[in-house]
Amino acid sequence: MKNQIVEAQKNKPTEEMIRIAQEEGVDINVLCSYVASGKVAILANNRHKNFTPKGIGKGLSVKVNANIGTSPEKADIKLEMEKLEMAKKAGADTVMDLSTGGDLREIRKTIIEHAEIPVGTVPIYEAAVETVKKRKTITKMDPDELFDIIERNGEDGVDFITVHCGVTIKSIERLREQGRITGIVSRGGAFLAEWIIINKKENPLYEQYDRLLAIAKKYDMTLSLGDGLRPGCIADATDRGQIEELIILGELCSKAIENGVQVMIEGPGHVPINQIETNIVLQKRLCNEAPFYVLGPIVTDIAPGYDHITSAIGGAIAAYYGADFLCYVTPSEHLGLPSPQDVRDGVIVTKIAAHAADIARGNKRALKMDEEMSKFRKALDWEGQFKCAIDPEKIKEFRKGRGLHDDVCSMCGEYCSMKIIKDYFQKK
Amino acid sequence: MKNQIVEAQKNKPTEEMIRIAQEEGVDINVLCSYVASGKVAILANNRHKNFTPKGIGKGLSVKVNANIGTSPEKADIKLEMEKLEMAKKAGADTVMDLSTGGDLREIRKTIIEHAEIPVGTVPIYEAAVETVKKRKTITKMDPDELFDIIERNGEDGVDFITVHCGVTIKSIERLREQGRITGIVSRGGAFLAEWIIINKKENPLYEQYDRLLAIAKKYDMTLSLGDGLRPGCIADATDRGQIEELIILGELCSKAIENGVQVMIEGPGHVPINQIETNIVLQKRLCNEAPFYVLGPIVTDIAPGYDHITSAIGGAIAAYYGADFLCYVTPSEHLGLPSPQDVRDGVIVTKIAAHAADIARGNKRALKMDEEMSKFRKALDWEGQFKCAIDPEKIKEFRKGRGLHDDVCSMCGEYCSMKIIKDYFQKK
Repeated sequence: MKNQIVEAQKNKPTEEMIRIAQEEGVDINVLCSYVASGKVAILANNRHKNFTPKGIGKGLSVKVNANIGTSPEKADIKLEMEKLEMAKKAGADTVMDLSTGGDLREIRKTIIEHAEIPVGTVPIYEAAVETVKKRKTITKMDPDELFDIIERNGEDGVDFITVHCGVTIKSIERLREQGRITGIVSRGGAFLAEWIIINKKENPLYEQYDRLLAIAKKYDMTLSLGDGLRPGCIADATDRGQIEELIILGELCSKAIENGVQVMIEGPGHVPINQIETNIVLQKRLCNEAPFYVLGPIVTDIAPGYDHITSAIGGAIAAYYGADFLCYVTPSEHLGLPSPQDVRDGVIVTKIAAHAADIARGNKRALKMDEEMSKFRKALDWEGQFKCAIDPEKIKEFRKGRGLHDDVCSMCGEYCSMKIIKDYFQKK
Repeated sequence: MKNQIVEAQKNKPTEEMIRIAQEEGVDINVLCSYVASGKVAILANNRHKNFTPKGIGKGLSVKVNANIGTSPEKADIKLEMEKLEMAKKAGADTVMDLSTGGDLREIRKTIIEHAEIPVGTVPIYEAAVETVKKRKTITKMDPDELFDIIERNGEDGVDFITVHCGVTIKSIERLREQGRITGIVSRGGAFLAEWIIINKKENPLYEQYDRLLAIAKKYDMTLSLGDGLRPGCIADATDRGQIEELIILGELCSKAIENGVQVMIEGPGHVPINQIETNIVLQKRLCNEAPFYVLGPIVTDIAPGYDHITSAIGGAIAAYYGADFLCYVTPSEHLGLPSPQDVRDGVIVTKIAAHAADIARGNKRALKMDEEMSKFRKALDWEGQFKCAIDPEKIKEFRKGRGLHDDVCSMCGEYCSMKIIKDYFQKK
């Protein structure tokens, strides 16, 4: 079966690479070399049919992921399919199925079947749910069962999996030594830390990393090395535990590339604005410029209900400094499971952050979009503006709600600056 | 009558300075020296009674302004009072009355009477409206009438006025030479440019700057030197016209400080993320660290309906680099006049940006707020979280809408990472 990085290392661009190079307007040879060296990941499980592969990393536009999935309290596959449609329509580049309630494999297969974009999962969730069902406590998890679940994810066509390989005896110890306000806020990280502490054994995803690599290679399933020790609040950001884990992920990253397995690195989390650049530079340096997949970062803790915005602020800054992939955060973060509308708001806002970063990074297609929009705005051409807008429906809704017609903006009315001076300053 | 900067230059802290120093936890002597040198402006017209003065600038927390006001299409004073209440309740530090419809003086006086926070205006709007009423076209504006209006604003207790003194024959010429996509997007800037071009005369606010200073000094009305040539799209950002105007504003700023008049500088506008730091550093250098009051900046043009968010991204970054005062942008920017709900959303989101910047700048009170919130979050203490949240109502609404009770978060349910590992990583 096809394996993107193996082909790239033989200097043979795949059809997926050719397609992505064309879509993004980049040189295919450069792209191929970045895939070979692990600076770009091509999300495309070799069993996933009829879908659009995505490239994530150096030289490419910033991508956006939407998390969907059930919880034990709310396990309704129809609702999840509604969220999936919302996410796709709003322009998500990928989705992750984080389900923990209901028939997990059935839900996953249904999502993959309808996704048409790459799908990611976090297999440790399924392992935890299965373990709890059978043996009551997560600390009884059987590592073999976890690897079986990972294998099934590969078989089902999952394009990328989060694996918290860096939660180790050593990184947990570093974390405990320093102390934290919010401890571990990654669910996968917390499961594994609990397992490690109680069983006094090393993390199986770290100890049996070769076994993990073999499964990932078979299906060309990209490993998204999870940040199980990411900070859960501003005060805990960029601490020793977090950085210890990042160093470990850097080591595992090199090993994956050498073994023909694609990899991304996951990043924080809650980070104050003044520490974002440091986090990006450090990840790029420690992990050989591997694609960086950040959750947020959320730049203040005090805005529940608005965390799609706190993370859009952090995400735009992170992507400007070099993050490649933004995991959305919805308005319901820290409060509850997102509704379909939350999914929509989360995707749009994260796309705004990604696009603003693309502009700042000099992406020509992104700059062109803004220039087009500005020309239509200057011409007071609303149809043109609808065409260029990131969410045309929102504008139409807005104007309809206020009874505005095509050529009127109620903001300044007759005192519109664009009407006052129409052509004097046109670009030559 | 009292004049803050004159007192500060005599090294005599006023009661307003003492109050602000206490509220913000800064040293009164340092604050007083910053007021004396024009690095901090105290917004407090000496005729404005029963209100909370605000300090803006170096060493102080980042402040947020909300624009309200009528347009010719919608001149309803009750609606504006509703917006004022919304803005205050959401935590706006100041409001600006940008009315252009209805009885402008009556509206202004009503707003000042109920504001309890500093009020700003843009007198050129009133001059334009009055001129158009009498003589049909703005180009017939009588400079004496403009100065009379400015005087009346001072008498009425207006704390700060936007005056586009930097729109001059020279800066307009520079702008025209370079060319622009969206030309002039500041209404005041467009009025004045039109007046200058048609009458072939210099901007009266520039030519008779001493007259302006004399009025401002009398009422201790802070001059907010407007950026009439601010860019209206990403492609126009940081161009020669904009920077020419900024240099002129820097010169006028020095002159104001020498003459015992407080001053702020207004800034862009639409600016890509990669140019924000440059804009701030340049303003601080050219204008002797005068307070910088930015509108946005908006970091992409393609997101109408979400410009409160595009500007929260830009505002957070700008304030991190040193902007002192953020003018809110609402979801209705570029589309129409904001509703009371838009005002609320705009203020909250801009406060989030300001707070995120305060954290990044090391403001101890801001950091403390986030730490408190994180402790309550870790303890799953919802009442505590309500107390610390920037918008407690939003959380309550959210949780009520989903039927959630005090100790439950539906996001992860029983797989809550905080429940899994409760105390192991507590901060020592």
